[in-house]
Amino acid sequence: MKKYAIIVAGGSGTRMGGALPKQFMLLRDRPVLFYTINTFLDCYEDLKLILVLPVDYMEMGREIIDAYFDKDRIQLTAGGDTRFQSVKNGLQYAEEEAIIFVHDGVRCLLTCDLIESCYQQALISGTAIPVITSKDSVRIISDEGNEAIDREKVMLVQTPQTFHGKILIPAFQIDYKDKFTDEATVVEAYGLKVSLVPGREDNIKITKPVDLVIAEKILQDRQPA
Amino acid sequence: MKKYAIIVAGGSGTRMGGALPKQFMLLRDRPVLFYTINTFLDCYEDLKLILVLPVDYMEMGREIIDAYFDKDRIQLTAGGDTRFQSVKNGLQYAEEEAIIFVHDGVRCLLTCDLIESCYQQALISGTAIPVITSKDSVRIISDEGNEAIDREKVMLVQTPQTFHGKILIPAFQIDYKDKFTDEATVVEAYGLKVSLVPGREDNIKITKPVDLVIAEKILQDRQPA
Repeated sequence: MKKYAIIVAGGSGTRMGGALPKQFMLLRDRPVLFYTINTFLDCYEDLKLILVLPVDYMEMGREIIDAYFDKDRIQLTAGGDTRFQSVKNGLQYAEEEAIIFVHDGVRCLLTCDLIESCYQQALISGTAIPVITSKDSVRIISDEGNEAIDREKVMLVQTPQTFHGKILIPAFQIDYKDKFTDEATVVEAYGLKVSLVPGREDNIKITKPVDLVIAEKILQDRQPA
Repeated sequence: MKKYAIIVAGGSGTRMGGALPKQFMLLRDRPVLFYTINTFLDCYEDLKLILVLPVDYMEMGREIIDAYFDKDRIQLTAGGDTRFQSVKNGLQYAEEEAIIFVHDGVRCLLTCDLIESCYQQALISGTAIPVITSKDSVRIISDEGNEAIDREKVMLVQTPQTFHGKILIPAFQIDYKDKFTDEATVVEAYGLKVSLVPGREDNIKITKPVDLVIAEKILQDRQPA
């Protein structure tokens, strides 16, 4: 089946006043986004990648594509004000007869194994959301205060959130709601259940400086420099 | 008010076959446990510390105390098969007219600010459980499958879990149940609600090698070597 990976590189929509967004920071001398893109392109020869960047960073994205990748396999497009709108923009370049991965650009340590297990599950059930359990005890805030919940029942959601195109594309035609924090919530609002698959502890998001140190260590453990 | 800190250094109960437990691994040339103990002792001059170690590691604990601390302020005792039993053993050395902190030995990056905010809350409401929210989307497993939950309502629990002695000591007289994953769940089973206070992102547990790298980075950011 055809495969599309929509890489959402959110963060600051403008260069003004802010630091360099994390997806462009360097990890072993290459931008974080390089690793994300490279893993998807390496994993499947027939996968096409849709890179969604804030409009002010499209030029920087273009430079990364030119430097490292076959530009015929990557469609660059501008994001919107919300993750929902960014993914919706990316979906214009995908087809319904396909499996579509939606992935955080800053989750640069995903592996082909994880992508493949999401793909296989999405083939079977139409959806695949990678999750891990919490390492800490968990409490839920309720109207009466807070209460302990079995931590085995609490799933922390990762990406790539993976869907059959026949589900994801029509689901994104519904109106935006604030509760859409990811694609799974959109698909649920569209009326479907989602399937979970085991994620990976080391499929971390790069959101603060210490995460680059962690990422470096994980890369080193996988393959010494 | 009197203050006791029970430091629970769980992990392997025996030396046979296993690697060195994380609480004894070195961070900036000192055992992880050094930082945990030092922060509590530095934070309050009138605090007494109860260090609960697996029986096979008590000698190693004694060496750390002798090397770095005033041994009159630290009571060393043997742990049990469960965290519940270990804390219960430690509680023998505490009094009811006191605030009692129960803390993971491997959470070595806690700060005096965090201890102090737990103390103040426990003075007011009798309990203080530090928590942080999840950075990832969260799903809850239910009988019908799984569903998204507002991540702002999901609290990941840290330590020091802090209690008035008049609550904690009698609460630990109840019979052990499997659901006792921490002290808050014991106090709830005893019939009380617990108060939450904001934890810290950097109050991490050292549970795998990469965590030592993270801890080193956090220490460096706080105070360059």
